[in-house]
Amino acid sequence: MNYQEVLEEIKEEIKPHLKKGEVANYIPALQKVKKNDFAMSIIDVDLNEYHIGSHKKPFSIQSISKVFTFALALQNYSKELYKRVGHEPSGDPFNSLVQLEYENGVPRNPFINAGAIVTTDSLISLYKENTFDYILHFIQDATNDHSITYNKEVFKSELKHGHRNLALINMMKSFKNIKNFTDSVMQTYFKQCSIDMSTTQLAKSMLFLANHGVNPITNEQLINESKAKRINSLMLTCGHYDASGDFAYRVGLPGKSGVGGGIVAIVPKKMAICVYSPRLNKFGNSYAGTKALELFTDKTGLSIF
Amino acid sequence: MNYQEVLEEIKEEIKPHLKKGEVANYIPALQKVKKNDFAMSIIDVDLNEYHIGSHKKPFSIQSISKVFTFALALQNYSKELYKRVGHEPSGDPFNSLVQLEYENGVPRNPFINAGAIVTTDSLISLYKENTFDYILHFIQDATNDHSITYNKEVFKSELKHGHRNLALINMMKSFKNIKNFTDSVMQTYFKQCSIDMSTTQLAKSMLFLANHGVNPITNEQLINESKAKRINSLMLTCGHYDASGDFAYRVGLPGKSGVGGGIVAIVPKKMAICVYSPRLNKFGNSYAGTKALELFTDKTGLSIF
Amino acid sequence: MNYQEVLEEIKEEIKPHLKKGEVANYIPALQKVKKNDFAMSIIDVDLNEYHIGSHKKPFSIQSISKVFTFALALQNYSKELYKRVGHEPSGDPFNSLVQLEYENGVPRNPFINAGAIVTTDSLISLYKENTFDYILHFIQDATNDHSITYNKEVFKSELKHGHRNLALINMMKSFKNIKNFTDSVMQTYFKQCSIDMSTTQLAKSMLFLANHGVNPITNEQLINESKAKRINSLMLTCGHYDASGDFAYRVGLPGKSGVGGGIVAIVPKKMAICVYSPRLNKFGNSYAGTKALELFTDKTGLSIF
Amino acid sequence: MNYQEVLEEIKEEIKPHLKKGEVANYIPALQKVKKNDFAMSIIDVDLNEYHIGSHKKPFSIQSISKVFTFALALQNYSKELYKRVGHEPSGDPFNSLVQLEYENGVPRNPFINAGAIVTTDSLISLYKENTFDYILHFIQDATNDHSITYNKEVFKSELKHGHRNLALINMMKSFKNIKNFTDSVMQTYFKQCSIDMSTTQLAKSMLFLANHGVNPITNEQLINESKAKRINSLMLTCGHYDASGDFAYRVGLPGKSGVGGGIVAIVPKKMAICVYSPRLNKFGNSYAGTKALELFTDKTGLSIF
Repeated sequence: MNYQEVLEEIKEEIKPHLKKGEVANYIPALQKVKKNDFAMSIIDVDLNEYHIGSHKKPFSIQSISKVFTFALALQNYSKELYKRVGHEPSGDPFNSLVQLEYENGVPRNPFINAGAIVTTDSLISLYKENTFDYILHFIQDATNDHSITYNKEVFKSELKHGHRNLALINMMKSFKNIKNFTDSVMQTYFKQCSIDMSTTQLAKSMLFLANHGVNPITNEQLINESKAKRINSLMLTCGHYDASGDFAYRVGLPGKSGVGGGIVAIVPKKMAICVYSPRLNKFGNSYAGTKALELFTDKTGLSIF
Repeated sequence: MNYQEVLEEIKEEIKPHLKKGEVANYIPALQKVKKNDFAMSIIDVDLNEYHIGSHKKPFSIQSISKVFTFALALQNYSKELYKRVGHEPSGDPFNSLVQLEYENGVPRNPFINAGAIVTTDSLISLYKENTFDYILHFIQDATNDHSITYNKEVFKSELKHGHRNLALINMMKSFKNIKNFTDSVMQTYFKQCSIDMSTTQLAKSMLFLANHGVNPITNEQLINESKAKRINSLMLTCGHYDASGDFAYRVGLPGKSGVGGGIVAIVPKKMAICVYSPRLNKFGNSYAGTKALELFTDKTGLSIF
Repeated sequence: MNYQEVLEEIKEEIKPHLKKGEVANYIPALQKVKKNDFAMSIIDVDLNEYHIGSHKKPFSIQSISKVFTFALALQNYSKELYKRVGHEPSGDPFNSLVQLEYENGVPRNPFINAGAIVTTDSLISLYKENTFDYILHFIQDATNDHSITYNKEVFKSELKHGHRNLALINMMKSFKNIKNFTDSVMQTYFKQCSIDMSTTQLAKSMLFLANHGVNPITNEQLINESKAKRINSLMLTCGHYDASGDFAYRVGLPGKSGVGGGIVAIVPKKMAICVYSPRLNKFGNSYAGTKALELFTDKTGLSIF
Repeated sequence: MNYQEVLEEIKEEIKPHLKKGEVANYIPALQKVKKNDFAMSIIDVDLNEYHIGSHKKPFSIQSISKVFTFALALQNYSKELYKRVGHEPSGDPFNSLVQLEYENGVPRNPFINAGAIVTTDSLISLYKENTFDYILHFIQDATNDHSITYNKEVFKSELKHGHRNLALINMMKSFKNIKNFTDSVMQTYFKQCSIDMSTTQLAKSMLFLANHGVNPITNEQLINESKAKRINSLMLTCGHYDASGDFAYRVGLPGKSGVGGGIVAIVPKKMAICVYSPRLNKFGNSYAGTKALELFTDKTGLSIF
């Protein structure tokens, strides 16, 4: 199949959708983007690349970082981690405290904020003050690109407006599900959310999930095959907050979105895809990005179902 | 791969798990089963069959019936139905009223009780007093076996102990999301839950979901390909009540369980599988059945991820 | 103090409030009222009476009936009843299923619908098919007026639109907190809600709660003093659904409202008051009625605080 | 009535209850108490005093401090404050985040932790860095005793174990219902909770609530009569967390408890009562203290109902 052609078609068909939805407004730094921007990258496990739009322009990866930290935590833990964070869809918005309170401080899954914070806490227990460096290197290695870094302005903005996340971490601390100082966990968490990457970089960085846990660029086994499958499974059931079922229903691929406007999706054994468009739907997922991925699976039949 | 051998291995390895969990006790009629029973059937889209255990013995399909009624409703409706029942995981036990109350009587998905009751109600609007016959014929046609029927004793037991479901339907009726008489909807709903089928019959009956919507026995298109994919997606994200994420994580296949002890699973484009063992885990899914399917994907690598 | 003068003042000051709020619309029969009507009756324990407005015109007492059934149940039960219905404010709207689900079918208090339904069920266990007659006689005796009866049209309308209450009772039945047939409980419950009384009759009927449990008209001890105090306490903490705290805060008297537009209030050891005005605020309590009682305690200083 | 005799009787009858319940364990500093201790003080508006037990021994007033800060806030605010904190019972445990999340960061009432934190925040907007001094002076003036101060060890222990309260304040900050720095609000809040007072001091300090807002020792009007009544009303409906209805039902007086083991109660127009016993029931209220107050109203008939 000619994927470049597919991308060109999507670019045309997506146009009427680029002005729908709103750019994330909970931190000011995220609003400084070209609001109708669009980019999409497909990279297959044989390293063929197909791109459209501003695919080299970095944007804030936000919650997509949760996939990397969970993979890094799974390298090191398994059962211990499962006691501290579940793998069920939450049935609630991404930052809900209700579920946490009813379930004694154990977040539903690692892709809601509370679960990602626990995951980062588990990394700090291992890597101490070097935790963010380990996270960044993991991403750089997965992408084979050591220029990737975080955006200091976004980071500061996150810190300043992070009260909801501070509520989450203190709630979990009261249930003894946070082992390190809350300040140091939040600093690391906000840094990982503030990393900037382009659709090209993100598609590359996720190839190991389409390739049995092996980075096809470097042939390094980042995690074992079974864990790679499980991350895909989690992305399918929990990757889009309270619209995860809808994404699975309409797109049919494991994926993870970020409020920066990015979405990555995996076609197991075949390819990684990244799409970017900063306006979000009411669930906090890229409006045009979701639509573009739906067009992609309609055109290619590459749904896992 | 030699699937018969795989089944023989599973039969050995499952033995220590057959005494774990408890048979459903909410209706007396369901307790009259051989508690440590086990059966498993694999049928592929070329109609090769592999079986182990009591695979010809009918058991109560219970919630597995929700797949059939939803498929039948999707034949007839699409957008109208989506307004009345969502496709998100519920994040709550299978019979929760909390979610219904907060979301104005619109159930999260068609595979929790409330959602299945709305689905049945939508069929009654079409087929009136013949609704149950249409449902039964749909199942008989999918299985190509017209001996399938419902169990009157189980049906009566359901009726007698159905207060929780009566609470659900009255709640939805108060939000005007039930269009027909509650009594006639509940009668039909309890009848569909009381249908008896064997693992052989169930595996056959689900082949259309592994085969683009086409029944490979009769070559009849039961629903279109896109809708078949969406049913698979729903089974993956919502097929096991509040353990759907765990099933996706550990088994990695679309599946639907019933409190009678059955689970069906789909390997898209390849096969349908049915496993039976009546003892349930705390989420209401077959304890040994879940374990058997996990062994199956471990041994065969047939996870969709 | 000249209470007649107080009533005349209230009548003047209440005028701008008589067009605020909306008449209950959940059953059509309740809408057939004079929407801006107003009546208020004060009767003290020495049987002095003060009235204003249409104080002899009967209206639907609705939830005010819950005070009578709870008093009748307390005549017969105490600890057994407390296991089946609590005495805490609910913190939720009057017909919430959420609380019931989290608290295993035990309603928070006897003045929310679920609690009143359990109370009526406890009476049916005693009085069988004569339960409604016993309830009606209790009210007639308390009022010393045997002309009081229920409104058949309202009753039928309740039955027809009672899905929410049917959800509640079936929910509680599933937790085994309803002992009799749900149909017979609901019939009795809806009949008691459909009783018609005037403000004069209601004020009289409640005098026993201001008078140590003794009806000052007949000198009959309806319940013992301790239980009378407890009913007053419950009216203060739970008598106005989700606005009970506000009523206590602003009026400072035990009271019970009904969606028919009536409110009764007790000044312990002194008097019973009843006010009527059918437009309701968003919590389901009479808009002008609440305001009139606030004016009353402001003018007389008769708050219990 | 001979109140000293009543106290002597209570002292005898309470003995079997002094070993029931558990001392608060959420902060270590609170555990260093004589576990079976008991004291009770009655002071009437004519300043007659009656005491029993260790009535001069200071203990940690904890949540009883919420009455003082709310009174101080009501001196300064009224409608503005009501927009930020309600006056309804919460129907949930004292530190629930669920309610806060559903109601957009507006706590149900000023006597649950979240509501008291908002109240303290409103004082900081007025008194800036001197807020705690103003609170302490208010209490010292009400008691006419300038030796009262806070316990530094308890304060530090609160700070160290205050994650749940940090979750609450950050949650409210995210809804913009906290106007000052969260750190400075929490410091002040924990200091006020750490104040030590004896039953004698506490009974004195609350006399203004039994006396139209006027301190009968100094004849100073601390708040106006209407506001004093409203504080009493709030204590009745919300003073004992999720057991407020039960306290109203069994004791029948406005009261406020603290996890240090103290309870104050008001007999409007007559007296203030304080009881102390550090073991708590499951709702966080003094076990023997609640029982002692129930005996008091049984013996004296001084319930407001």
